[in-house]
Amino acid sequence: MFNIVLHEPEIPNNTGNIGRTCVATGCSLHLIHPLGFDTSEKACRRAGLDYWPRLKPREHPSWETYLTTERPARLWFFSTHASRPLTGLTSPLLMPGDSLVFGRETRGLPPALLAAHPHQQVMLPMIAGERSLNLATAVCAVIYLGLDHLQRAGLISLTPDGRLHPPLNADAAAALSPPPPRSGYTGTT
Amino acid sequence: MFNIVLHEPEIPNNTGNIGRTCVATGCSLHLIHPLGFDTSEKACRRAGLDYWPRLKPREHPSWETYLTTERPARLWFFSTHASRPLTGLTSPLLMPGDSLVFGRETRGLPPALLAAHPHQQVMLPMIAGERSLNLATAVCAVIYLGLDHLQRAGLISLTPDGRLHPPLNADAAAALSPPPPRSGYTGTT
Repeated sequence: MFNIVLHEPEIPNNTGNIGRTCVATGCSLHLIHPLGFDTSEKACRRAGLDYWPRLKPREHPSWETYLTTERPARLWFFSTHASRPLTGLTSPLLMPGDSLVFGRETRGLPPALLAAHPHQQVMLPMIAGERSLNLATAVCAVIYLGLDHLQRAGLISLTPDGRLHPPLNADAAAALSPPPPRSGYTGTT
Repeated sequence: MFNIVLHEPEIPNNTGNIGRTCVATGCSLHLIHPLGFDTSEKACRRAGLDYWPRLKPREHPSWETYLTTERPARLWFFSTHASRPLTGLTSPLLMPGDSLVFGRETRGLPPALLAAHPHQQVMLPMIAGERSLNLATAVCAVIYLGLDHLQRAGLISLTPDGRLHPPLNADAAAALSPPPPRSGYTGTT
């Protein structure tokens, strides 16, 4: 479905919890070092429950090696300071295979990384004056808003008993043009 | 926005985390006793951060007293066994003031409570064979899918900088008829 990319996460049970969400929704998990913990840590495995060993998260020594190794097709950067919401959209914004990048629990993404991608910043709207959700809950909300986009666009469908079909309709995805860029949108980086 | 109702929650940091999400999104939190912890517990307050004291969750001794005291206008029950997904909907299902009921972390909602409301059961779709999300992450995903419903239906709007407007457009909400019931839908119970 999507690639979830955690940039230098600090709290092991958040990452474990996100791993659990990834397995349940068919997403991949990428962890950009340095991490604030070891992925074999008890807190990480405990939050990931029995999902964690099945997840096989990919760990990357740095952001640059992540880009070189994975060559992400399209990146979205989550920031509470962004002004582009992921809700209320009638046409889908997220596409199958998109990489969704989340920053540290305490500091978010580095300002330099955000500044390099001004038109690929998105956010979850909050009440004015509030700026913070737990990282694991925010990731889960983003994944389900994204699945909702894909489902409404006909790119994924549910089984008769309401389960997600793991294989995407790749032809339909390829046939759909990407969403209209805002000014200065540069495509894949 | 919505009333989040946790039925006999067991894990304090999930409830704390959900409280944080409620404050950030303008939802109310109801806790149905017995709880597996005390809401003054450190784990609960820690997960709720500085949001917890501002939240003022309402605690109810039992499901019956909750119904009598709060008189919820419309209830939705979340169950991994339900077949009605909250994603992929073109017309909004959740409405302002709806009460969204979630069961225990280990067992979900009591079978008798679910059986009494067969047409008000909803779920988050998962990959076939997977049945479990962390409670706090599931609640956050549901709230944002619900806000997305309200926003697409024009019942809430965002400020120019992408924040949620706390006051709902009550007239617009009242003018919208409820979604078409399935057979046997009984309204408010």
